[in-house]
Amino acid sequence: MSQARERDLGHRRSALHAPGTTVFVGARRLSEATINIIDYDAHTLREIQGADVSACLERIGMDTVTWINVNGVHDTALIEALGDGLGLHPITQEAIANTVQRPNWEEFPSYAFAAMKMLDDGGAERGVKIEHVSLILGPTWVLSFLEDEGDVFDSVRHRLRTGTGRVRSMNADYLAFCLMDAVVDHYFLAVERIGENVEIYDERVLMNPRPEDIHEIHRFKRQLLSLRRAAWPLREVVNAIARSESELLDSKTKVFWRDLYDHTVQVIDMVETSRETLASMHDTYLSSLSNRMNEVMKVLTVISTIFIPLTFIVGVYGMNFQYMPELHWKNSYYVLWIAMSVIGIGLITYFRRRRWI
Amino acid sequence: MSQARERDLGHRRSALHAPGTTVFVGARRLSEATINIIDYDAHTLREIQGADVSACLERIGMDTVTWINVNGVHDTALIEALGDGLGLHPITQEAIANTVQRPNWEEFPSYAFAAMKMLDDGGAERGVKIEHVSLILGPTWVLSFLEDEGDVFDSVRHRLRTGTGRVRSMNADYLAFCLMDAVVDHYFLAVERIGENVEIYDERVLMNPRPEDIHEIHRFKRQLLSLRRAAWPLREVVNAIARSESELLDSKTKVFWRDLYDHTVQVIDMVETSRETLASMHDTYLSSLSNRMNEVMKVLTVISTIFIPLTFIVGVYGMNFQYMPELHWKNSYYVLWIAMSVIGIGLITYFRRRRWI
Amino acid sequence: MSQARERDLGHRRSALHAPGTTVFVGARRLSEATINIIDYDAHTLREIQGADVSACLERIGMDTVTWINVNGVHDTALIEALGDGLGLHPITQEAIANTVQRPNWEEFPSYAFAAMKMLDDGGAERGVKIEHVSLILGPTWVLSFLEDEGDVFDSVRHRLRTGTGRVRSMNADYLAFCLMDAVVDHYFLAVERIGENVEIYDERVLMNPRPEDIHEIHRFKRQLLSLRRAAWPLREVVNAIARSESELLDSKTKVFWRDLYDHTVQVIDMVETSRETLASMHDTYLSSLSNRMNEVMKVLTVISTIFIPLTFIVGVYGMNFQYMPELHWKNSYYVLWIAMSVIGIGLITYFRRRRWI
Amino acid sequence: MSQARERDLGHRRSALHAPGTTVFVGARRLSEATINIIDYDAHTLREIQGADVSACLERIGMDTVTWINVNGVHDTALIEALGDGLGLHPITQEAIANTVQRPNWEEFPSYAFAAMKMLDDGGAERGVKIEHVSLILGPTWVLSFLEDEGDVFDSVRHRLRTGTGRVRSMNADYLAFCLMDAVVDHYFLAVERIGENVEIYDERVLMNPRPEDIHEIHRFKRQLLSLRRAAWPLREVVNAIARSESELLDSKTKVFWRDLYDHTVQVIDMVETSRETLASMHDTYLSSLSNRMNEVMKVLTVISTIFIPLTFIVGVYGMNFQYMPELHWKNSYYVLWIAMSVIGIGLITYFRRRRWI
Amino acid sequence: MSQARERDLGHRRSALHAPGTTVFVGARRLSEATINIIDYDAHTLREIQGADVSACLERIGMDTVTWINVNGVHDTALIEALGDGLGLHPITQEAIANTVQRPNWEEFPSYAFAAMKMLDDGGAERGVKIEHVSLILGPTWVLSFLEDEGDVFDSVRHRLRTGTGRVRSMNADYLAFCLMDAVVDHYFLAVERIGENVEIYDERVLMNPRPEDIHEIHRFKRQLLSLRRAAWPLREVVNAIARSESELLDSKTKVFWRDLYDHTVQVIDMVETSRETLASMHDTYLSSLSNRMNEVMKVLTVISTIFIPLTFIVGVYGMNFQYMPELHWKNSYYVLWIAMSVIGIGLITYFRRRRWI
Repeated sequence: MSQARERDLGHRRSALHAPGTTVFVGARRLSEATINIIDYDAHTLREIQGADVSACLERIGMDTVTWINVNGVHDTALIEALGDGLGLHPITQEAIANTVQRPNWEEFPSYAFAAMKMLDDGGAERGVKIEHVSLILGPTWVLSFLEDEGDVFDSVRHRLRTGTGRVRSMNADYLAFCLMDAVVDHYFLAVERIGENVEIYDERVLMNPRPEDIHEIHRFKRQLLSLRRAAWPLREVVNAIARSESELLDSKTKVFWRDLYDHTVQVIDMVETSRETLASMHDTYLSSLSNRMNEVMKVLTVISTIFIPLTFIVGVYGMNFQYMPELHWKNSYYVLWIAMSVIGIGLITYFRRRRWI
Repeated sequence: MSQARERDLGHRRSALHAPGTTVFVGARRLSEATINIIDYDAHTLREIQGADVSACLERIGMDTVTWINVNGVHDTALIEALGDGLGLHPITQEAIANTVQRPNWEEFPSYAFAAMKMLDDGGAERGVKIEHVSLILGPTWVLSFLEDEGDVFDSVRHRLRTGTGRVRSMNADYLAFCLMDAVVDHYFLAVERIGENVEIYDERVLMNPRPEDIHEIHRFKRQLLSLRRAAWPLREVVNAIARSESELLDSKTKVFWRDLYDHTVQVIDMVETSRETLASMHDTYLSSLSNRMNEVMKVLTVISTIFIPLTFIVGVYGMNFQYMPELHWKNSYYVLWIAMSVIGIGLITYFRRRRWI
Repeated sequence: MSQARERDLGHRRSALHAPGTTVFVGARRLSEATINIIDYDAHTLREIQGADVSACLERIGMDTVTWINVNGVHDTALIEALGDGLGLHPITQEAIANTVQRPNWEEFPSYAFAAMKMLDDGGAERGVKIEHVSLILGPTWVLSFLEDEGDVFDSVRHRLRTGTGRVRSMNADYLAFCLMDAVVDHYFLAVERIGENVEIYDERVLMNPRPEDIHEIHRFKRQLLSLRRAAWPLREVVNAIARSESELLDSKTKVFWRDLYDHTVQVIDMVETSRETLASMHDTYLSSLSNRMNEVMKVLTVISTIFIPLTFIVGVYGMNFQYMPELHWKNSYYVLWIAMSVIGIGLITYFRRRRWI
Repeated sequence: MSQARERDLGHRRSALHAPGTTVFVGARRLSEATINIIDYDAHTLREIQGADVSACLERIGMDTVTWINVNGVHDTALIEALGDGLGLHPITQEAIANTVQRPNWEEFPSYAFAAMKMLDDGGAERGVKIEHVSLILGPTWVLSFLEDEGDVFDSVRHRLRTGTGRVRSMNADYLAFCLMDAVVDHYFLAVERIGENVEIYDERVLMNPRPEDIHEIHRFKRQLLSLRRAAWPLREVVNAIARSESELLDSKTKVFWRDLYDHTVQVIDMVETSRETLASMHDTYLSSLSNRMNEVMKVLTVISTIFIPLTFIVGVYGMNFQYMPELHWKNSYYVLWIAMSVIGIGLITYFRRRRWI
Repeated sequence: MSQARERDLGHRRSALHAPGTTVFVGARRLSEATINIIDYDAHTLREIQGADVSACLERIGMDTVTWINVNGVHDTALIEALGDGLGLHPITQEAIANTVQRPNWEEFPSYAFAAMKMLDDGGAERGVKIEHVSLILGPTWVLSFLEDEGDVFDSVRHRLRTGTGRVRSMNADYLAFCLMDAVVDHYFLAVERIGENVEIYDERVLMNPRPEDIHEIHRFKRQLLSLRRAAWPLREVVNAIARSESELLDSKTKVFWRDLYDHTVQVIDMVETSRETLASMHDTYLSSLSNRMNEVMKVLTVISTIFIPLTFIVGVYGMNFQYMPELHWKNSYYVLWIAMSVIGIGLITYFRRRRWI
């Protein structure tokens, strides 16, 4: 929640600037932005850690595929230098620095731009961290921006280095696909963990509902809401790419994008299923809690109901009238006990028969 | 639920691999994958149980229609050997081995691929088993993958062997239709059984609602949710086939696909009707339970309300004031009894008249 | 409900057959299927009751418009004979015999097929009977199948016999329109009766809600659910016909089909309005019931609350302490009565002022 | 409600007639149908009150724009005479006489037909009267049918007579636009009045919810439901006109139709906003009522809870045991009063601290 | 709310006029309408405060881009003078003066018209003020109408004056974009503030729900409803512009409009997220409140239930029977205390073990 609020402040700051001005919007997560380059073709691969802008532009000119990954988007000077060098439209540069940007896909004559949210699942105790990712696909290069250092793209790096899969022999668009594929795979991890937790919770709550569970249900609902908010526009982005006629996208990779689209649909399916499970669980939880409460109240009320007439009876014989013949009979005390027992047992039997207790 | 969780783990394992890598995702259900071939034309039919890949590829080359059915998808080497022999795209091979794949339809230049969920209804005690099925339709062959051994396709086998219906005189696409038709027929069985159970339950619950019924309603809701999750994308798959322009699909079979599409729509109709019935039943159940509870509480409270004023009265004459003239009157005890009877009967009459009891 | 269950069994039986096999699915309602032919042009009209298949085929060849009506669809041999004679596709023959078929419209080269549900409103005590109807429209003939004998088409027969309206001077497609128009008119009757009942019920329930009303509301909901399930696909069918490019449909009748489409939309409007009224009524009913209950509980609790402090007070003076000065005062008994009256009236006044009673 | 029921009966009567037969459906509101003609061009205007059919047909032939307004649609002979004279299709004639007709737009070769509902807001005590209106637009004439005499079109008449606005210099289609514009303006009046009432009610209910308010909320819901039922199809009608390619509609009036379309959208917006406000109000009302009830019950229960232990204590010292030392102590009565005060105040303090009272 | 009512009255007044008549509809917010002109190209900029209509028309004819901003739309004579001078269609002039106009976009041959709502967020105490804005885009000029004086366009003025950004070197359509961009930025501010308030409220309510919170939730719901009502049609407007083929819109600015469209989608996303959060909060709030209430009732009832049997027992020994042996036993008083303690502790233990307290 505090993250959301900080983003809002971020946007507020940007509202005062001209459109197309590169202004960082968001919360700074790194002290310094770093650039890493991986430059490869089927035969060679060269990695540069901590490169500068000129190194990037130099590698672009070559025949190889160049992947420039930037961690940290608060350095607007860096974004502008890179952007101008690569011919990025000012509005793209603004979008890169704006971490509250909604996921979208925009094609420009010489490149295409994709913005999306990345889910980094930190397990039960850390929760899901949402990070903004920008990808720019050029003819022979891919430019990626992350808010923070992370290991989401490590599997792609590993495949590039070892030459596993077909990534080394394909063009830049396939690299872009691999990066988005890695992002979507992390959606699965996050959605699955929440889905599992909902399942476990579901079983626990149905067995033993407690008043404080309502807060946990509310928390789950909000988590799923934020996942959903990230996943739906991502689906649109991947769909737009799969249907794109851009020359930057090779017809050979189309089938991969369509496959990725199916994955995003599946992510949404899982989110919606969890939401529906949660909704049904919520209803069931409320009913169970209310049933338990009712049971308690019913039993307590039954106890009162049995004793109230009996208390009346003993009250009668506590009266101080001078002329009450029963008071002087020898066995009236015992008779009264018998009568009260009969009344008590009779009431209990009656309540049982009507299934009230 | 445990099945769902195990699948999630499955996906997690696959997230580390390159796209287009054939990795088994799911829970292994068979110790060994087996291949069965049925090779036929209008005049001849040959069956091979426990064939190997080379036998499959050999039969493909001929003029006949070849149906290769593989039970078990954990044997990725087998899938790759078959896939490479038949010219399947790596992404298709990956999809075959991925049992958490969402139902979809993808056309390739030389074949078409369909993934779907199969519902195998095991009756009241076993519940509905969901299995993943892949169908690949080539020009003269159909390749089908099941997770487990099962009898879903037995009716098709029977018709092939006996030459019933028109399947023997039609092309491979009609065989693919027959297989999907068999799958959809099993949806009907599953949906009908749940629908019947909901009906029976509905009548029982309205007559005699019990607190524990809420769990059963929740269970029904979740079952229908998973049926729905399987049925909706299947409808899209069949619709895509019915509208497909692929040359693999003969124009003569179009009418059958459209008919099958109507069947999937009907399955969804039945699921949605059961869901709405269940939702209305849920509301009615809650109201009934609450009404019963209220009735109980009301009667008990009425009893208390009658005796509380009476107890007050007898308390009055239990006081020990020295000067209480009534205490010394001769008939005051009897008069009091009459007065109390009048009050009690009066209250009961009043409550009855206002329809409180 | 029993009807629904029996249909399910019906479908189960058909799941074992090859697609395109004519198998009766449903509950047999007639002992024997009967064929009636009306053969007419602008000048002549000939009726044959209890015709056989050859009589049908003979009339088809002529210049006149031939309406063949078959009551009873369990006689699959009859359907096959007629179907083969008129050149109906096997899948059409299967659809005719399948009374659980979803309403749809399918065009074939030489004919068009429409399936729909007919509502036969039997008044308050019999309820609405849902029957399956198939219509096949050929160039000069219309073939209609009903599950049962009924009077739905009687108004059309009457118009044909008397030459009322323009039906005698139009082609077969206008006859098909008249038949579907008669079906839709019966939807109005059924929907209106339920709508009226909901209205009457609405007024009654708001005046005097009773716990058992919830079952009636549930029953209304289910009736509307089944009407809706029949009406929505019918709308699609009529829409498909109104937009059809088929040569079987004369451009002159287009305006009638569009008008019929408007009628089906209106039926759905009425169903949805009844559903919304019912939903609002349900909410209001629950609130009213809960309000009544609360009122009762409140009054009862108020009575208890007034007497409980008074009972405490009389209990005080029922104590047997040796030294309680009040006990020996002369007027303390009367003073106490006054005090208790003041307390009682004070509480009542307080409760009234706070609007608790 | 009685109006709705009477309409249903109306439809029932029409179900027995052939399609395209002019039968009055609805409730007769006028004793006699009257025709008024306004015939004008930029320079001249002639009005005929109480014209007959031949006068109508005579005026049509001229160069001027002719507006024929008919109040009362029960006179089917009149409709047929006018309809045949103007070349109206039988189905149009049927639609004019059918006051339960759903709003729609239908283009014919020589004219276009629009049916819609008119809302005549009679203020708080009379409520909204829904009336059926038919408009037929010919090349140089407009024919309008109202169920009743009314003042909805008076503003148009006024503009025609005084030559205000551009209506006198435009064609018949602009006149049709003016008439529909007047109808939509009356929607605003009706929707605004209900919207205002909902607003006022909202404030009142939140301040002081009463059990009987639920009936008022239900009444509002039903009113909005019927407005909505009239407004949605009207939007479709205006949209169809705005998109129509008919030659009857001048390209110069297109912008007016699009503007009118925006108005209908705004009407629907207002209806939906009122519905949502009402839904939120309903929830809030229920919560408020339940909160008030709970507060009452809580206070009453707290009073009982305080006195019940005290009553137990005085009961103890009302026992008649021979050996109860406290009874004989000098100050035990006063001590007991102190103890009971402490207990009472302690309980009240405890309840207050836990915020129970 | 009073604002809404006053607008309704406004519309009512306009319903009596001919379409295309310029009539002010709304609440007058300024005593006098003022015109400000900014006239610029890349090199020069000239500002005229308090211009008159002829000054406006004079500037239009030049080569520069002219922005005419009018504060106050009640001066219909001014609107007509400007409108006629600039060739605006009467319906546009009517729309400018109609502040209850729904947001829309309409293209005319020589200009394009956009109406929208502006949100001016006045902070927590003033709330969100909704103002109507009209923009007219001509070939070299932009005409903007505000209801009131405000600072929404100040950032654009600042950029124009200082030559920041690209606005000075672009055409009039880019200026129009800048103005709408400023409007959308103010949506963000308003939506974010409400979103933040909902967040803060959410945390507070879950910790400590109070009965009066329901009114605050209702207020939030209504605020979001009105934001939503403004934002959805704005999205349509921006979308229509982004897809427009009008020659007034340069292809170079397309990318900015698409970007603005993404912003409006994001505004709606934020509104919908707040709405869903609020809905979930409402549910949770109700459950929490009901849980608290139940806890209170349960504890109170438990106390009663413990003392009622004990009070019965002491009542027994308060009876005045002559023959009650226990009364005369030496230790029976002490034994009774022990027995009652056992009963009391036993009941408490039992209730605790069943988790009732």
